[in-house]
Amino acid sequence: MSAMLSNALPFDRLVDACASDWRAYIEHPFVRGMGDGSLPEASFRHYLKQDYLFLVHFARAWGLAVYKARSMGELRQGLDILKAIVDLEMGLHISWCAEWGVSEDDLAALQESRATMAYTRYVLDAGASGDLLDLHVALAPCVVGYADVASWLLAQQFLKRDGNPYMRWIDMYADAEFQQAAQAERDWLNARLAGMTPERLAQLSRIFRDATRLEADFWQMGLTLAD
Amino acid sequence: MSAMLSNALPFDRLVDACASDWRAYIEHPFVRGMGDGSLPEASFRHYLKQDYLFLVHFARAWGLAVYKARSMGELRQGLDILKAIVDLEMGLHISWCAEWGVSEDDLAALQESRATMAYTRYVLDAGASGDLLDLHVALAPCVVGYADVASWLLAQQFLKRDGNPYMRWIDMYADAEFQQAAQAERDWLNARLAGMTPERLAQLSRIFRDATRLEADFWQMGLTLAD
Amino acid sequence: MSAMLSNALPFDRLVDACASDWRAYIEHPFVRGMGDGSLPEASFRHYLKQDYLFLVHFARAWGLAVYKARSMGELRQGLDILKAIVDLEMGLHISWCAEWGVSEDDLAALQESRATMAYTRYVLDAGASGDLLDLHVALAPCVVGYADVASWLLAQQFLKRDGNPYMRWIDMYADAEFQQAAQAERDWLNARLAGMTPERLAQLSRIFRDATRLEADFWQMGLTLAD
Amino acid sequence: MSAMLSNALPFDRLVDACASDWRAYIEHPFVRGMGDGSLPEASFRHYLKQDYLFLVHFARAWGLAVYKARSMGELRQGLDILKAIVDLEMGLHISWCAEWGVSEDDLAALQESRATMAYTRYVLDAGASGDLLDLHVALAPCVVGYADVASWLLAQQFLKRDGNPYMRWIDMYADAEFQQAAQAERDWLNARLAGMTPERLAQLSRIFRDATRLEADFWQMGLTLAD
Repeated sequence: MSAMLSNALPFDRLVDACASDWRAYIEHPFVRGMGDGSLPEASFRHYLKQDYLFLVHFARAWGLAVYKARSMGELRQGLDILKAIVDLEMGLHISWCAEWGVSEDDLAALQESRATMAYTRYVLDAGASGDLLDLHVALAPCVVGYADVASWLLAQQFLKRDGNPYMRWIDMYADAEFQQAAQAERDWLNARLAGMTPERLAQLSRIFRDATRLEADFWQMGLTLAD
Repeated sequence: MSAMLSNALPFDRLVDACASDWRAYIEHPFVRGMGDGSLPEASFRHYLKQDYLFLVHFARAWGLAVYKARSMGELRQGLDILKAIVDLEMGLHISWCAEWGVSEDDLAALQESRATMAYTRYVLDAGASGDLLDLHVALAPCVVGYADVASWLLAQQFLKRDGNPYMRWIDMYADAEFQQAAQAERDWLNARLAGMTPERLAQLSRIFRDATRLEADFWQMGLTLAD
Repeated sequence: MSAMLSNALPFDRLVDACASDWRAYIEHPFVRGMGDGSLPEASFRHYLKQDYLFLVHFARAWGLAVYKARSMGELRQGLDILKAIVDLEMGLHISWCAEWGVSEDDLAALQESRATMAYTRYVLDAGASGDLLDLHVALAPCVVGYADVASWLLAQQFLKRDGNPYMRWIDMYADAEFQQAAQAERDWLNARLAGMTPERLAQLSRIFRDATRLEADFWQMGLTLAD
Repeated sequence: MSAMLSNALPFDRLVDACASDWRAYIEHPFVRGMGDGSLPEASFRHYLKQDYLFLVHFARAWGLAVYKARSMGELRQGLDILKAIVDLEMGLHISWCAEWGVSEDDLAALQESRATMAYTRYVLDAGASGDLLDLHVALAPCVVGYADVASWLLAQQFLKRDGNPYMRWIDMYADAEFQQAAQAERDWLNARLAGMTPERLAQLSRIFRDATRLEADFWQMGLTLAD
């Protein structure tokens, strides 16, 4: 609906243009299962493992952003996120995996699932063949979406806090720091998307929708334990 | 087994290193269904449509090969294949689609399926982030594999020639010209793979296996009509 | 001056924003020397040889354009130019070199001059790290500029037609077919540049100016026989 | 000569294959002028300013290395160097420029010289169109060469320590930390170059020689104040 409103922010218009895909991603059964604690542990473990492989390509994508930078501001933006992923998130992820019984050796021997390949390579190709904005738009379902997933869950009646093994995951992405990083990305996208021609917006809209569908598939892979 | 034999050709060793994946691709139920004529027409039509989108990214991949060329020989090789795809195959494909009731307008309005995105973007990322050999190896399940699919079908007892709507597809890839092109690619790969270090072969082996699995998924998409 | 006029075409505004660099390129002493026939033959021969190496990277740049294509129109545009370069221009160039005493073996053994590396790699990096428009803008001093050089020379009083060994070069780029190709590129650029934000235009303006300076250096290399 | 010796390390063979180019770079008049203190201050200031622009593209090149990484080891290697450049060297460079009367505003308004464009874009294209090893080899004249320049100067009789405004530059690159980083890069290159086919080594040899010549041009630009 807000797509009809001329004063909707550009990023919101990307979301509205694929509203049902976006909702299917944010409110995916996997997400709901984390919220009410009903998600099978095997599903979460499978997700965790593939998410580690995802992080490797996510880091590659921000390396690509550094390469594509055309100002010191863009260069530092890419590097800051790259450092957050490699120096911080990966360590957290590895220790988290350990708690779920997945060792570093397990991680090193992992075979990449189709869903991991599909989303990561789509993002990398969009960025390599397009420009820095294409790359950011393809990454937005991840960067902005995870913050939305956490916020959405916190607002649900079915949310189970006590004894929910996934509450820590939810809290991590609901955390002020992560929410601020997501908002910073949203602001950057809004600034860049402003003034784009309708043709360019249509192109970016398609990238955003495709990436959103592929992110939803990533949840689905966890649910079905698909390789 | 031939992986054990020191005199196996390098490309055959790539195949042997993922023998079960390769066979699952070459002898996929979709392929068998074309051979005995039992494949539902809706499946073939879905495949045909997505294969058009595949061709677009396949052409992009050979554009990438031209960009990555380091000799006139490599440059002409990429360009020759690019011309074969855009000036020849695409036209054939469009007319074929027309016979199957899919118009050019339908093709222009198509939404890319997950399987199409997964395989094409994997190939493009392998090539963009690696070198020309990575690109060729990622493309080999398509370039070499389609020739093998056709040859394999021709040797099967269950092959149905008369009244099989898919016989034309099989004949096209069994044709001498296509088989020679596939053999030329095989020869080029054998020449390039010779002398590679074990570390490099392991890397290329993984790319070949991943690409083979993603090509099998492309058949599967046709079978299940997945979007 | 026309930069002040709001109705100037976008491409003309790129030219006007670096008017003195553009004139220094179009009316370079090397160009004047071709016009009045006074250019030393050694200079032209040096230019011819390096221009062959330029063509190789020029072809790579259009391969990059094919890779970056996001529509069949963009894909065919890149391929058509690629075919014109490799299937047509390179052959002409080789036969021309032969007439000037430069054999194919000489061409194969050539060492690339600094000026050749500087312009070609600048173009390729602008295109690889930016988008298709960055690539076209970086190539414009070549694609559009050579047509302008020929037109400009034809309008000069000092032009010597009889017995001028460079008249054939001038006629080739003054030819209707080449002029039309240059105009088609100009039209494409005008269509794409329309609607760009001022920030984007400033970025493209810098690329165009840098590329123009590097093209002028290419003439200078011929004049000074620099390696 | 050591190129003849089968036990020479692979990187030394790259150097030996372009020995005169390498020496012309390491012992360039600009370098000698820093050693004996005779280099005009305007030359050093011009060099310093362009070296800042160089650092920006140098950082982009290591962003490219992160994108091209195929293991966590390669990813961290690229990121560590990237952090050293952006978080450390750039700050040092800016404060150094300030001491030499070049403000941050001056740096922001700089026009890139031909020599800066030529070397940086050559490196970026070698890396983007090739693989990670191509990129490292193209960067080696900088990463390894600066350490060699400093070591060489320290061993020269003409070195002037007292009152030499360039002694600090020399000491910085002669410092144990920088020398160790250069040695680490040398070791990495030796490990990767081992086992390469002669064809591949010939290709890398050409990249190394071209990059060495373009680095020498960077000194020359300082000497002649060329834009």
